[in-house]
Amino acid sequence: MSKAFRNRVILNILDKYKDIWALGYMGAVANWDLETYMPVSGAKVRGEAFGRLSTISQNLFLKKDFVSLIHKGEKEKNLTDEEKGVIRALIRSLKYYTRLPSDFLEKYEKTTTEATVIWREARDSNNFKLFEPYLSKIFNLNKAKAEYLGYKDSPYDALMDQYEENLSTREVELFFGEIREPLKELLVKIQKSPKYFKEHKLEKALYNEEKLKDLNFKILETFWADFSRLRLDISSHPFTTSFSNTDTRITTWYHKSDFARSLLGTIHEFGHALYDLQCKDELEMTPIVGGTSLVIHESQSRLWENFVGRSEGFIRKYKKDFDSVLSVKQSVSLPVDQYLQYFNKVRPSLLRVEADEVTYHFHIMLRFEIEKGLIEGRLKVRDVREVWNSKMKEYLGVIPKKDSDGVLQDIHWSGGTVGYFPTYSLGTFLSAQWEQKMGLEFRIQNLEFVKNWLEEHIHKYGSTYTLDDLLKKNHMKFDPSVNLKYLEKKYSKIYGF
Amino acid sequence: MSKAFRNRVILNILDKYKDIWALGYMGAVANWDLETYMPVSGAKVRGEAFGRLSTISQNLFLKKDFVSLIHKGEKEKNLTDEEKGVIRALIRSLKYYTRLPSDFLEKYEKTTTEATVIWREARDSNNFKLFEPYLSKIFNLNKAKAEYLGYKDSPYDALMDQYEENLSTREVELFFGEIREPLKELLVKIQKSPKYFKEHKLEKALYNEEKLKDLNFKILETFWADFSRLRLDISSHPFTTSFSNTDTRITTWYHKSDFARSLLGTIHEFGHALYDLQCKDELEMTPIVGGTSLVIHESQSRLWENFVGRSEGFIRKYKKDFDSVLSVKQSVSLPVDQYLQYFNKVRPSLLRVEADEVTYHFHIMLRFEIEKGLIEGRLKVRDVREVWNSKMKEYLGVIPKKDSDGVLQDIHWSGGTVGYFPTYSLGTFLSAQWEQKMGLEFRIQNLEFVKNWLEEHIHKYGSTYTLDDLLKKNHMKFDPSVNLKYLEKKYSKIYGF
Repeated sequence: MSKAFRNRVILNILDKYKDIWALGYMGAVANWDLETYMPVSGAKVRGEAFGRLSTISQNLFLKKDFVSLIHKGEKEKNLTDEEKGVIRALIRSLKYYTRLPSDFLEKYEKTTTEATVIWREARDSNNFKLFEPYLSKIFNLNKAKAEYLGYKDSPYDALMDQYEENLSTREVELFFGEIREPLKELLVKIQKSPKYFKEHKLEKALYNEEKLKDLNFKILETFWADFSRLRLDISSHPFTTSFSNTDTRITTWYHKSDFARSLLGTIHEFGHALYDLQCKDELEMTPIVGGTSLVIHESQSRLWENFVGRSEGFIRKYKKDFDSVLSVKQSVSLPVDQYLQYFNKVRPSLLRVEADEVTYHFHIMLRFEIEKGLIEGRLKVRDVREVWNSKMKEYLGVIPKKDSDGVLQDIHWSGGTVGYFPTYSLGTFLSAQWEQKMGLEFRIQNLEFVKNWLEEHIHKYGSTYTLDDLLKKNHMKFDPSVNLKYLEKKYSKIYGF
Repeated sequence: MSKAFRNRVILNILDKYKDIWALGYMGAVANWDLETYMPVSGAKVRGEAFGRLSTISQNLFLKKDFVSLIHKGEKEKNLTDEEKGVIRALIRSLKYYTRLPSDFLEKYEKTTTEATVIWREARDSNNFKLFEPYLSKIFNLNKAKAEYLGYKDSPYDALMDQYEENLSTREVELFFGEIREPLKELLVKIQKSPKYFKEHKLEKALYNEEKLKDLNFKILETFWADFSRLRLDISSHPFTTSFSNTDTRITTWYHKSDFARSLLGTIHEFGHALYDLQCKDELEMTPIVGGTSLVIHESQSRLWENFVGRSEGFIRKYKKDFDSVLSVKQSVSLPVDQYLQYFNKVRPSLLRVEADEVTYHFHIMLRFEIEKGLIEGRLKVRDVREVWNSKMKEYLGVIPKKDSDGVLQDIHWSGGTVGYFPTYSLGTFLSAQWEQKMGLEFRIQNLEFVKNWLEEHIHKYGSTYTLDDLLKKNHMKFDPSVNLKYLEKKYSKIYGF
């Protein structure tokens, strides 16, 4: 096997980079702790420590000798793919560090920290007016950010690029243009089906939390087994964080009822974790360790969530465990079909995080259209609430009765995260293409094959490649029709049309 | 209330110091994680991250402008006690950073990392010969360290000073000289007592771990109650770590039987934690936050462990809980006296960490004498095992059958920690003086008073003062006779002589 890193300049870069890596590593551990075990009063001091850490890290990155090494590396010939990946990743970081003035970043940080507090208040009191001035500030700051960062066509491009390298507004528009009508039609067919239900009884059924915890671990053990490198904990919203391919952590949640939410949360995060766990050792402590493209990352989590967790094979395999988890007051034995319908219910709803495989994308389209409108100046913040509600009506036929179920539901904007949402839909659509590529061998009985395939074709590269290059390397092209066909086929079977 | 920090130079120092603080903070979080939740395979990469972090921190500390600021601060007049404390603490760190050459530190780090691995092997196979060459290297390195650091009388002074500022070999010798005979006599009296027992049945009695966990929390709640600032977790050896006075964490252990070990572990660590939790807010993020004198720290943990946890009042208060924890096979109700004897058993034993209030100090004397002998060149490493065993015979009348119960029992030497042990005994003796100072108000029924007293007289100052200065401030002088009298009185009652 040829070595990933051999160029003298790159090796020098990687050695110096380890300092920056170490600071990032420490910050990641502290962040995991914050989300899982930190006593609540510790937040304020931790915020101070994070602030200092990021400044120290930025200063190390911008040290003259490091920056000139990067530029020297850029000019080197005959680099391996990994070496090119390192340069690409560092140039990208350098762009953010150098183009955004420090007083701007400080203002951005201050505004979003305040806004997150206000957003919580506004959400809890269903009062969009309270949040509106902050939303306005945040979108103004994001417009400025786009100008600092630079773009070719739309300023929204510059913002999306933060989360998915090179992703353009035009591409996303084309993508949504391609899926909007087919998904609408599919949803209508499902809603007209005699099998359509407004609420499944399992959504309200209480479960035994201890048993569900055990089941989460049991399932993970079937998927992965090596708990010397993986942890599962609890947090207010499931997430994955990876410190290295020898220490990657996921979390899930428990809500007393609706047990699939917890299981699918675990499985979704496992999909993310596997990407990091199977990154090759050579990339450890480099700028290209772990998966960084959000679209690829989401394609992994969705692959496991939808193609494993929601599959009939999976449900058959764990049916008895589901029965046992639900046996709170009396023993339960439900037919597989009941579980299959419950795991795969499709229904217009108000909350994105609770949305199913079909309606989910309308939630994303709505956010994309609002964000783009605001950033391109064709929409005013004062109209956001109204636009939100009318688009919900248009796409899903439901209107939020309160803003906490509508425009105030996501934390993203308050934290300054603009341009992120499209990656959720793109990743989900891409997941169906990986499944198709693996073909018939993708089965719950054959997860060893699936894991190895993903390692070989995606995971081991970490973030050596951009999304486009990784697809090319696998002789693929992004094609939304694959997921559309999968959804049509799957739901016509479940809903019988 | 007057401000702790007002001098312009000091304020400038403190602002710059926050970077170093933040790195220390992150390292502490990562270290807590390592001891509690880290998947085992994560250790190697974490080691790399720690290594980089400490270099970055040292580089920040040794930056020219920071060092010259410290020296400028040294010359400032009319400093507050806290400001003087800051300068004292920084000058102390500077001494270590500047006097120890980096190639020496690297060698030290490398040797002790290797030695710790070998020590575990040697301990597990009861083979001192395996560890001997490493012990030899480590003591040679420590001799060199003492020369680098400098000292007045004994090179061992320089090593102890790392753990307790200004502590001298001469003082420790006088201290042990004062306690050796009285403790021996007390031990003989206990051993001759008709109430003396070789093993208490509660040492082997199994307990219900879930109930004991709950009891640990229940006790902590009586002591402190504010779990928004304190956590209790599990680790292989109990410890305390404090990230701030709003986030301090302790751990305990569980061994299936001998429940007092777990409870007293929790209570001991709580004593450490309280010192950090009650440090005043103004000292947060400064070099004098939290208690740093190891003797004072140990005096706090021992105060809670011995004067609260082993007290009759405590045992009466929780007797029913003890009964319940022990009710594994059948319901249990033991008389208070049984528990009192069990919590306060005195008996020569081989292991320091299991030793009682009387015999503990012989374990420390033995280690002190061996360390001093090796550092001062009067003892050879090849004779350490024999000296250990003969001193055990002399002090406690027992000889280890295997080295893992003897010379190989502590992790300290393999990690390069030489000069630390004496602080355990000194702290324990000091704890009795605090109790005496508080007088009759020290009662399990009056822990609010105890906490407030400790806050007012010790905790709020963090490490503003050295041990000597803190004692002076409280109109006290270190006096071993107080603990000797307490032991005599307590154990004459329990053992009836």
